[in-house]
Amino acid sequence: MAGRLTRRTRVTRFDPAGTTVEREDTLAVEEPLEIRVNGRSFSVTMRSPGDDFDLVAGFLVSEGVIWSAEQLVSLRFCAGTDENGLQTFNVVDAQLSPETAPPDLSLERHVYTSSSCGICGTASIEAVEKAAHFGHSNDDRTWSATLIGSLPDRLREHQKVFDRTGGVHAAGLFDAAGKLLCLREDVGRHNAVDKVVGWALREGRLPLAGTTLQVSGRASFELVQKAHMAGIPVLAAVSAPSSLAVEHAEVAGMTLVGFSRGGAFNAYAGAHRITE
Amino acid sequence: MAGRLTRRTRVTRFDPAGTTVEREDTLAVEEPLEIRVNGRSFSVTMRSPGDDFDLVAGFLVSEGVIWSAEQLVSLRFCAGTDENGLQTFNVVDAQLSPETAPPDLSLERHVYTSSSCGICGTASIEAVEKAAHFGHSNDDRTWSATLIGSLPDRLREHQKVFDRTGGVHAAGLFDAAGKLLCLREDVGRHNAVDKVVGWALREGRLPLAGTTLQVSGRASFELVQKAHMAGIPVLAAVSAPSSLAVEHAEVAGMTLVGFSRGGAFNAYAGAHRITE
Repeated sequence: MAGRLTRRTRVTRFDPAGTTVEREDTLAVEEPLEIRVNGRSFSVTMRSPGDDFDLVAGFLVSEGVIWSAEQLVSLRFCAGTDENGLQTFNVVDAQLSPETAPPDLSLERHVYTSSSCGICGTASIEAVEKAAHFGHSNDDRTWSATLIGSLPDRLREHQKVFDRTGGVHAAGLFDAAGKLLCLREDVGRHNAVDKVVGWALREGRLPLAGTTLQVSGRASFELVQKAHMAGIPVLAAVSAPSSLAVEHAEVAGMTLVGFSRGGAFNAYAGAHRITE
Repeated sequence: MAGRLTRRTRVTRFDPAGTTVEREDTLAVEEPLEIRVNGRSFSVTMRSPGDDFDLVAGFLVSEGVIWSAEQLVSLRFCAGTDENGLQTFNVVDAQLSPETAPPDLSLERHVYTSSSCGICGTASIEAVEKAAHFGHSNDDRTWSATLIGSLPDRLREHQKVFDRTGGVHAAGLFDAAGKLLCLREDVGRHNAVDKVVGWALREGRLPLAGTTLQVSGRASFELVQKAHMAGIPVLAAVSAPSSLAVEHAEVAGMTLVGFSRGGAFNAYAGAHRITE
């Protein structure tokens, strides 16, 4: 997949002094990925190509379909070609073990995003809580505020695609000692998280007790939900959380950190896990 | 809907000096909205409450279901209550005119996001191009680079919810003279654009010839697609575009501006519409 993450393009640069120059710029590549389960179309997401098997595995964890590597018998790219007859690698089929119930593809599941979850906030939070295989987070480890405050810079240091394009989000999984376990970048921030979770599933590491997930942007409901489904006790974001993200973190027993910048941050839920 | 856009919460603030304080913070409210068409569930999106009728109308334009106000007979909130029996306003039903074909709810449309569009990038771009009611953008107006470069600051000036929460995206529609026609904020950037487009549809202003849409974040494929479906010739973003966003803007005949900051910006497509 090397070389598929960025693409060179010509741009016209305008500046306030009135000068215009033609120059080269680097774009983050975005392509659709169709996810099939047992041969049936399940969902399509716009993503950065690469780590597609992790993305599919993590998406299935987020959706509550699987929670262990044994439930995933195989992942394979389906045939798909572009106008030049080249393999596009944009369709992945996941075969589940016979014991694993495939996702419900009934008409009631015409969902718009992975964060869709029912009719009202309360109902959806309760529904997610029930569906979370690893249940309420009761990880009683503590993290030092210094460690949590250092993670945004550590994430940024490792962001390769962002350096070239400025156009991708990142998610980094750190252990309790602050060691980076896995980092993924994607044009979609939910995909970056799914790729990390899928990596962990395939490595046999779920539930992810004793870890912190640091993300580059905001903390939306969907990111808290994905972290919860993977058993991650601490989610830290560089920017703001939404109201539903905070509510869900509280219900799930998670620690939610936001506005983590320059070593300072806010704990919106589960502050008891953070020590001076 | 006043008062539903933000919510106060208690946070624990940690700073690098080792001090910890409890204080109040303001969150951007995020809640799911279920969109029904002719009484049937179509999609669920996580959004900032408010301007929900605009959101539904714009989403239907983005999906190619409608393109004029006459096709939308009515919009109404369905009954829905929270645990305290209060109306939640989180389900909207759109009644289409008898002549308007409802969206395809067959199993093939199990989509993950509004940006999902088929199996491979090429196929999806062609599909969208065919589906765009207003066709290829042939708006031959020109915009001054000074005007385009001034729009991010003008957008920022009008962002009320961002000022309080730092947690929302904005989309602002400007006419060729630089006058702000409509601004919407939302926790989801695709929703902010749908709300602007829905406002325009309900005002009888589609197609939006002679306008520029300025957005606060990145330019993804889905935002270019939404602007194209509404007949907007110029899309400008504060941050990076993706590869597919640039390709789609070129195919659609649109002007795509990125990294618009401090009066300087890059034109990734359709630079001919911008003059010194």
